[in-house]
Amino acid sequence: MAGTTLKIDISGRGGSYEIAIANGSISRVGSWAKQHSGKVARKIIVVSNTTVFPIYGGFVAEQLRSAGFEVGTWQLKDGEVHKNWRNVEKALNAFAAFDLSRTDAVVALGGGVVGDLAGFAASIYLRGVPFLQIPTTLLSMIDSSVGGKTGVNSSAGKNRVGSFYQPSGVLIDTGLLKTLPPREITAGLCEAVKQGVLSGRELFKTTSDFLSRYPVAEMSKNFGEREFGNAIDSLVAAQVGFKASIVRGDERESTGRADARSRKILNFGHTLAHALEKVTSYKHFKHGEAVGYGILYAAELSKMLALTDDKVVNLLYDVVHRTGRLPSLSGIDPEEVVEAFRFDKKQVAGSLQMILIKGIGKPAIVNGDGIPRSTHIRALKHLFKKHQS
Amino acid sequence: MAGTTLKIDISGRGGSYEIAIANGSISRVGSWAKQHSGKVARKIIVVSNTTVFPIYGGFVAEQLRSAGFEVGTWQLKDGEVHKNWRNVEKALNAFAAFDLSRTDAVVALGGGVVGDLAGFAASIYLRGVPFLQIPTTLLSMIDSSVGGKTGVNSSAGKNRVGSFYQPSGVLIDTGLLKTLPPREITAGLCEAVKQGVLSGRELFKTTSDFLSRYPVAEMSKNFGEREFGNAIDSLVAAQVGFKASIVRGDERESTGRADARSRKILNFGHTLAHALEKVTSYKHFKHGEAVGYGILYAAELSKMLALTDDKVVNLLYDVVHRTGRLPSLSGIDPEEVVEAFRFDKKQVAGSLQMILIKGIGKPAIVNGDGIPRSTHIRALKHLFKKHQS
Repeated sequence: MAGTTLKIDISGRGGSYEIAIANGSISRVGSWAKQHSGKVARKIIVVSNTTVFPIYGGFVAEQLRSAGFEVGTWQLKDGEVHKNWRNVEKALNAFAAFDLSRTDAVVALGGGVVGDLAGFAASIYLRGVPFLQIPTTLLSMIDSSVGGKTGVNSSAGKNRVGSFYQPSGVLIDTGLLKTLPPREITAGLCEAVKQGVLSGRELFKTTSDFLSRYPVAEMSKNFGEREFGNAIDSLVAAQVGFKASIVRGDERESTGRADARSRKILNFGHTLAHALEKVTSYKHFKHGEAVGYGILYAAELSKMLALTDDKVVNLLYDVVHRTGRLPSLSGIDPEEVVEAFRFDKKQVAGSLQMILIKGIGKPAIVNGDGIPRSTHIRALKHLFKKHQS
Repeated sequence: MAGTTLKIDISGRGGSYEIAIANGSISRVGSWAKQHSGKVARKIIVVSNTTVFPIYGGFVAEQLRSAGFEVGTWQLKDGEVHKNWRNVEKALNAFAAFDLSRTDAVVALGGGVVGDLAGFAASIYLRGVPFLQIPTTLLSMIDSSVGGKTGVNSSAGKNRVGSFYQPSGVLIDTGLLKTLPPREITAGLCEAVKQGVLSGRELFKTTSDFLSRYPVAEMSKNFGEREFGNAIDSLVAAQVGFKASIVRGDERESTGRADARSRKILNFGHTLAHALEKVTSYKHFKHGEAVGYGILYAAELSKMLALTDDKVVNLLYDVVHRTGRLPSLSGIDPEEVVEAFRFDKKQVAGSLQMILIKGIGKPAIVNGDGIPRSTHIRALKHLFKKHQS
C-alpha cells in the first residue's frame, strides 16, 4: 500500500504513535486496529455519528470483526451541539454496557466532534483505555488527529472540559473525503492555510499550489484520480507533519511560553473565530470557516500595528478566498464581536493573547489588552468591508 | 517547622511534587499554596465537604487570602454517595463561575471522596489545572495523597470514570486527625496494615508497634502530646514512602505486570472489600474497614492454597483486630459475596486477579479464576466464623 506513515513522538501513553496516511487505507482497518490497540484487546467500540456511520460504519465494523474483535458501536447525532457533557456520560455508559475493559479499545470514526468526545470518554473510562482515530473530515485529518486535545462543551462553557490524551494510532484515508460536503472541505482548507502561514514558505506554497491546481468548486470530480490522490495525501502529510512538530515541543501548551514555536501559535485566527462563532450562537459558521475570517482579521490587525505590510495581507486574502465561499458576515455587529473577545481572555490568567504575523512563517504572540478597542473595531470593519466587495 | 518532606518523583505534570508531613503544618497553608500552585496563580478554589469545611475551611480560606489569593469555595455533602458524575459537573460549573484560569489552582480539603472528585475535576477543567491536596483523614493521608488516581462513581459503575493526575503538592497535618471520628481512624489503620503487610518487616513492625503503643480506643487522648505527634508523623511518612515507591515504578498500573512491585499489589484485600461494599450497597462499611476484612480473607485463602501458614494468618488477625472494631458481618451471605467478585473481573480483560500473600512483604498475584468457587466459600466461612468468635 502506498502512502505515508508519520511517527509521532509525544510523551503520551505509549510514548509515541503512528499516523498512517494513504488513499484507500480504510480497507486494512482490521489489521491496523490489531496492530495499534495493544496485544490483548479483545473488544473494540466504534464511536461515530449518525451521518458518517451509515456510510462507513458497517464496513469498518465488519473489517474489525474479521480481524477478531468483538465490536460494539455507539453513535452521536451530527453536530457541535451534541459534543456535550451529557453525551460523554452516555458514551461511558455504552462502554460499560459493552463491558469494555482497560485493555480493550475505543475507535473514533468521524470528524472533530466525534474525535473530541470519543477521545475524552476514552481518556476517563477506567482512567484511560487505548484510543484509535479514523478522522473523516479534512479538518480533523490535519488538525485534531495530532495533538491529543480532547474536550466537550458543558454548562461550564465551550471546550472548558477535556484532557490531553494521545491516541494509540491514527488512520487517515483521504479517499473518505469524497463524501464530505463542500463546506467541510472549505473549513479544512482554511485550517490548512492557517498552518501554512504559521509554518513558513514551504508548507504555505504546498497548500497554495494545491488550491491553484484543484479549485474547490470542482474538487469532488477529482476523487479516484491517481494524481489528485497523491497531491491530497502529500498535502495532508505535510500539514500533519507541521502540527506534530509544534505539539512535540510543547505538548500541553505551556502558559509560560510565548515564542514562535510554542503551541499557542496554533491559535492564529482563533480569537476572531471564537468570537464569530459565539455571536452567531455556533450556528452560522463551521469552525474552520470562522478561522478563515480569523486569519484575515489577524492580517488586518498585524498591518495596523505595523507588524506586516499590504503585500502579506493581500496574499492572505487571495489564498483564503481560494478555499471556497465563506458564509456571509452581514448582520454581524463588529462591536458585539470585539466584546466577545473577552471569552478567550479568561482561559489564561486574564490576559488576551493574540497570535499576529510579521510574515509567512513568522507568527508573533501579542498581548491583545494593549491594543485599543478602536483599533480592533477598525480592523474588523476593514475585513467586513473588503469581504463584502 | 519540624516534620518530614517527601519528594515524589513521578512522570506527572510537573515531573515531581512534594508531600510535606508535619503536625501543625496547616498554619503555614498560605505560603505552602503559594509555593506549589505555580508562579502566576491568582485564584484558588477550595473544594471540601460540609463536615470538614465548618471545622477547617474558614481558617484555610483566611490563610490563603492573607497569602494573596482570591479564594473561592465549593462544598460537597459528606459521603461516598456524593462522589458522582453530577457533582463533577457542579464542581466544574463552580470553577467556571469563579473564572478559574489555567494558571490558577484547585485545593482539596477533605478525605478520599473530596480528593478523588476535586482531583478529577481539576484534571479535566481546561484540560488540567494545578491541584493541591490537604488530606484530612488518615486513609487519604497514607493512600490517596500519593498515586494520582482520581475518579467518581457514575451510571457506568463505581469508580469507572477518572484519570491519573498527579497533584502539584500535598500538605499533611496529622494534627487534623484529632477531629476524625474513631471509625475513620480504624479505616485508615486497616489500610496502614495492608501496606505494612505488602512492604515487608520494617513497615509492618512500625505499624504494628504504633498500634501496640497507642490503642485505638484511647487514641484521641494522645493528640497534642509531642511523642504521639512524632510517632504518627513517622508512621504516616513511612506509609507514604512505601506507596510512593510502588507508584513510582508503575504509575498507571500496567495491566501486563504481575510482579511483587507492580501497582496491582496495592489491591491486596480489595477483592473482598469491593464485594462486601457492593452487597451492602456501600452503606455498612467504610472502605478501609472492608479492606480490614479483605486482608483476613486473603490470608485465609493464601493458607488454603498453601501459599502461607497459620502463623502468618494469626499474626494478621491480631494486628487487624488492633486497628479497632470492624462492623459486624452478620446477615451477609457468603454466596452473594463470592458472586460479587465478578465486579472486579470486568476491569482487566475478564480475569479475576487476586493479591494473596506468601508472608510479610511477599505478595503474590494469583489468577482467581483458577480457584474453585468452593474454596472461596470455605475461606469466607472461616473468616465469618473466626470473626464472630
